[in-house]
Amino acid sequence: MAWNTNVRWRLPLTCLLLQVAMVVLFGVFVRYDQDSDAHWIENKGSGNVSGDDMDNEFYYRYPSFQDVHVMIFVGFGFLMTFLKRYGYSSVGFNFLLAAFGIQWAVLMQGWFHSFHNGYILVGVENLINADFCVGSVCVAFGAILGKVSPIQLLVMTLFQVTLFSVNEFILLSLLHVKDAGGSMTIHTFGAYFGLTVTFILYRPNLSQSKERDGPVYHSDLFAMIGTLFLWMYWPSFNSAVSNHGDAQHRAAINTYCSLAACVLTSVALSSALHKKGKLDMVHIQNATLAGGVAVGTAAEMMLMPYGSLIVGFICGIVSTLGFVYLTPFLESHLRIQDTCGIHNLHGMPGIIGGIVGAVTAACATTSVYGQEGLARAFDIEGSNWSASTQGGFQAAGIFVSLAMALGGGTLVGCILRLPIWGQPSDQNCFEDAVYWEVPEEHKNEALHPEDSTLKPSEP
Amino acid sequence: MAWNTNVRWRLPLTCLLLQVAMVVLFGVFVRYDQDSDAHWIENKGSGNVSGDDMDNEFYYRYPSFQDVHVMIFVGFGFLMTFLKRYGYSSVGFNFLLAAFGIQWAVLMQGWFHSFHNGYILVGVENLINADFCVGSVCVAFGAILGKVSPIQLLVMTLFQVTLFSVNEFILLSLLHVKDAGGSMTIHTFGAYFGLTVTFILYRPNLSQSKERDGPVYHSDLFAMIGTLFLWMYWPSFNSAVSNHGDAQHRAAINTYCSLAACVLTSVALSSALHKKGKLDMVHIQNATLAGGVAVGTAAEMMLMPYGSLIVGFICGIVSTLGFVYLTPFLESHLRIQDTCGIHNLHGMPGIIGGIVGAVTAACATTSVYGQEGLARAFDIEGSNWSASTQGGFQAAGIFVSLAMALGGGTLVGCILRLPIWGQPSDQNCFEDAVYWEVPEEHKNEALHPEDSTLKPSEP
Amino acid sequence: MAWNTNVRWRLPLTCLLLQVAMVVLFGVFVRYDQDSDAHWIENKGSGNVSGDDMDNEFYYRYPSFQDVHVMIFVGFGFLMTFLKRYGYSSVGFNFLLAAFGIQWAVLMQGWFHSFHNGYILVGVENLINADFCVGSVCVAFGAILGKVSPIQLLVMTLFQVTLFSVNEFILLSLLHVKDAGGSMTIHTFGAYFGLTVTFILYRPNLSQSKERDGPVYHSDLFAMIGTLFLWMYWPSFNSAVSNHGDAQHRAAINTYCSLAACVLTSVALSSALHKKGKLDMVHIQNATLAGGVAVGTAAEMMLMPYGSLIVGFICGIVSTLGFVYLTPFLESHLRIQDTCGIHNLHGMPGIIGGIVGAVTAACATTSVYGQEGLARAFDIEGSNWSASTQGGFQAAGIFVSLAMALGGGTLVGCILRLPIWGQPSDQNCFEDAVYWEVPEEHKNEALHPEDSTLKPSEP
Repeated sequence: MAWNTNVRWRLPLTCLLLQVAMVVLFGVFVRYDQDSDAHWIENKGSGNVSGDDMDNEFYYRYPSFQDVHVMIFVGFGFLMTFLKRYGYSSVGFNFLLAAFGIQWAVLMQGWFHSFHNGYILVGVENLINADFCVGSVCVAFGAILGKVSPIQLLVMTLFQVTLFSVNEFILLSLLHVKDAGGSMTIHTFGAYFGLTVTFILYRPNLSQSKERDGPVYHSDLFAMIGTLFLWMYWPSFNSAVSNHGDAQHRAAINTYCSLAACVLTSVALSSALHKKGKLDMVHIQNATLAGGVAVGTAAEMMLMPYGSLIVGFICGIVSTLGFVYLTPFLESHLRIQDTCGIHNLHGMPGIIGGIVGAVTAACATTSVYGQEGLARAFDIEGSNWSASTQGGFQAAGIFVSLAMALGGGTLVGCILRLPIWGQPSDQNCFEDAVYWEVPEEHKNEALHPEDSTLKPSEP
Repeated sequence: MAWNTNVRWRLPLTCLLLQVAMVVLFGVFVRYDQDSDAHWIENKGSGNVSGDDMDNEFYYRYPSFQDVHVMIFVGFGFLMTFLKRYGYSSVGFNFLLAAFGIQWAVLMQGWFHSFHNGYILVGVENLINADFCVGSVCVAFGAILGKVSPIQLLVMTLFQVTLFSVNEFILLSLLHVKDAGGSMTIHTFGAYFGLTVTFILYRPNLSQSKERDGPVYHSDLFAMIGTLFLWMYWPSFNSAVSNHGDAQHRAAINTYCSLAACVLTSVALSSALHKKGKLDMVHIQNATLAGGVAVGTAAEMMLMPYGSLIVGFICGIVSTLGFVYLTPFLESHLRIQDTCGIHNLHGMPGIIGGIVGAVTAACATTSVYGQEGLARAFDIEGSNWSASTQGGFQAAGIFVSLAMALGGGTLVGCILRLPIWGQPSDQNCFEDAVYWEVPEEHKNEALHPEDSTLKPSEP
Repeated sequence: MAWNTNVRWRLPLTCLLLQVAMVVLFGVFVRYDQDSDAHWIENKGSGNVSGDDMDNEFYYRYPSFQDVHVMIFVGFGFLMTFLKRYGYSSVGFNFLLAAFGIQWAVLMQGWFHSFHNGYILVGVENLINADFCVGSVCVAFGAILGKVSPIQLLVMTLFQVTLFSVNEFILLSLLHVKDAGGSMTIHTFGAYFGLTVTFILYRPNLSQSKERDGPVYHSDLFAMIGTLFLWMYWPSFNSAVSNHGDAQHRAAINTYCSLAACVLTSVALSSALHKKGKLDMVHIQNATLAGGVAVGTAAEMMLMPYGSLIVGFICGIVSTLGFVYLTPFLESHLRIQDTCGIHNLHGMPGIIGGIVGAVTAACATTSVYGQEGLARAFDIEGSNWSASTQGGFQAAGIFVSLAMALGGGTLVGCILRLPIWGQPSDQNCFEDAVYWEVPEEHKNEALHPEDSTLKPSEP
């Protein structure tokens, strides 16, 4: 499989083509919304707009937006730098795909949710949602990390953002599911999409690259930068698009609690599962985050702080067990090569999150939420709403997301299998030097004799 | 001293036990407060609650909370990665103890300050205060860094959070001391607590580990990540729980000023005290932060920008002198082995901060604050208040904090001396490999022959 | 050129002298403004001050301030750590000059813009503007990185902040130019100032240090931390001092768009210009940011999202081309040694930003902005304003900034040429060991025999 990995013309053309398309589509469709348009000052104080400067949506959402932005670019980017020779690609390709993805997501989500009189009207909430959408691509990237070319990533982003938006529309607008932190739309969908893609792109001889499929000491510390920024800002992630006031407030508290509990159980299991009781950085970097994934749906609901702790408690255990037992099993028996173990961090916790959300919604009562509070929390307009129905639709959302992920992932996987995207050969995976100019020292120091096979595959 | 450092059952059991206790206690005691409960919408616009969404406490505090959160996890975590072979433990154990500590602090502080009708009602301010409380544990961790097991850290956190909360209650509720940025409650208490613990845990043969008790080039750069995030976000730290409006605003300005001045005097002293005028990364990483510690108490008061500069000016000098002269003296003459030099960064500047606060409070007048402003700044209710009394109580707060630190530290130190916690032997200090699975290369590259003594102490 | 690089007395004295001057000047001039003074509570609800706590300027600006603060200290600091043996200096000297610069900028900008009854009244907006001003010094630092002593940097900061403030006063107060994100005042001025200084400080034998003038693998990852924090927080940078509400909101959206587009074209050009299609970290670290620079002026205007995409599109191309063709040309033919390539990241994009701003302003109409919106966006008071005049003044601002940069840079360059500042010799450039105590391993591992010439130049 000596593919041509010289992407000199293919990568630039892909980037430029996509970016030109974005410019044209933004030109035709995207305009400022009421709160970001210069006419805002004239509309203030009239209709249902308050006369207070502070009442611009910007001030409710912008701090959370910036935190989410950090999670997507530094969080996901650095989390994946744990590989010893794939740091440039981890952070650089993540940067590339996210920069494209957010533009395409503004359009796709805009057509579905912010389309008025022929225009997509954008404000800060659109930026957050675009970042969220790209989050699901970053998740999927984790499964195929090290085994794909940047062109493949751009193609995957193009399709995945599209499918994400369709799935999100089905869940939020048709099924009226609540999923503010995206346990289903982002994590479940993203993870199973990525796992399906990596299944289709199965590489039987990947062991030829196993020399590079691991960390060095400092690469693990770089990865901890990613872990910690994800962990710290997750309360912002889960609360960023919740209703003003108590819902945002509560979502942050619940996420804070869940994540804290998750750290302790991850550490506990990591030590317990090692024969000398030693901790494994992979678990600390990943499983500690599962609690954030799993309260994504229910964080804005009246889950209660102890409910959040229980969710985090369980997810730290499930996720760490997954890393130790399930990931090797998936690889050896189901041909699913999951580089970062996204099944443990996003897949299972995402499904748990969907279930927790469904159960919490099904238990919602006016005594817990108050009459008005319940109506607001679940956007109830008519009188037909019942908690158990809501719970049922929430549960349906999990299955829809899974179906979209498996179907979409199969389609996209097949497209990415075409031998035209400049993907690396099995013996050159997890290696920056394929797509990057790397410093001379690094080349010599770590490249092994068999790595000289890098050259043949390049014209 | 060949202790058994295999923590396989002890660490998991400790973590799980503590986490189960948290779940139960949260279940019994913790509920949402008015601003984070779904009933908020119904209460808005009635009583003393404004009808504006923006008036939720969340919007006053959340951005500051996230900054403080970054300081605790990335700031303290990475600041301690300067040791060449202790990066995993620095950032990982800090993560563990803080994740446990914030839960326990929500309970302890809640019982003292947010207890209503049998429930602890939590909102964003509780999360900030929990982070603050854990900050004092992170400070103490700096003194014993590299010489303790993760179990010891959890035990210490359990006790220190308890003692912190008692001390905080005495200061804030009984003595009516103002200490928004925690010069006394966090830094003075945390530092002298940690120093007492390390004194009790004195290791006469620590020099056997001195090979590892220092940085490599890149570990110093990782540490600078911690330093800078602490430095940049300190204005948020000192203003996070201040009164709305001018007090938060002023606290941020004062801290900004103090920290800026502190950098220049730290650099000046670092160069002046080196025989070739060269700068020492230890000073740049630590002494530059002393200015933030030392305006912790007074930042929200009318300290004036130049007053803040003077405080920063002095602390940069005192702290750097401490690193050069005092830390070696403490180690050789007083058997206080202070790994990170917390006495210089938190101990002395904390006391200075307490004094500055006492003096600033004692000088408070209505001409400077205005009638209403003074009443608000010092929570004056009756007519018995006088500035000099306030100053006196402030000063008393320093001594109470010191007494609690020394007493509590002695108690906790004695508990941690028990040979059951899996602590490392003197020749295996400052070494990740004791508690972590480390990459093969790292093991071989840096482990010296005598480090093979690692094995004998493990069953 | 065996200068004495032992700065033992010169550096401490410079630091202390400057800091004492700051204390005195702050003591004489700096006071809290209305929103940060304790009298705020008394003034609330009277005059044009609302009675709402939330209406304190702090809440409009503080989150943006913190983001800008991160950009200056972590963003610029780490962006420059790409050099293999200059990480301490990059991040440490940037820390030093910025800490001094913000104090001096508070004074200089205060005298010009916040001077009332003999006092400079400071609030959060002053802190942001001080950070902005220092941003231009950080830009200039990029040109001379590795070739100057910390004393030279402090001297340069002293002068550059002064000149910046004069230039800013001319643009904003005399020409009534709009430049919220500082394309002209920060980037154009900073870049051409720095380029002029490095031209004057030309080192004909700099090739003697070329061994150290490059990255190692992990230093490039550290630099990516800087890149990403700059990239992520740039929307805050460009919106931080814009008008409340729609202007802040719009500036963030436009910057988000421009930066996203810029990433794709930077990657495209980086690959297209490499003979094997490989990406160059230098381009990813720098050119991807050019889009933020180039919407600095127009971001708060009605540039439209697609307009922002176009600006980012062009700047990614221009900047990458600059790195590949122009920087080597400038060095070999014009004797301009630009270490970080600031001409490509700040110079050209800054000028483009000025032009985009002038054109956007010249096209402003009431149909796009609304009557009130237009008046507010351009601070129109009388009736003499016309869009084309505004455009003309905007364009004039570019030339004024360039003239100030070239004139000021020449002056400051000549001052810095004096052989009294402890600058390194040509063979000791890009080397931390000249001014820093570095770990033993690092010294031995990378220092080449000819580097022993380090010693002779030190007494």
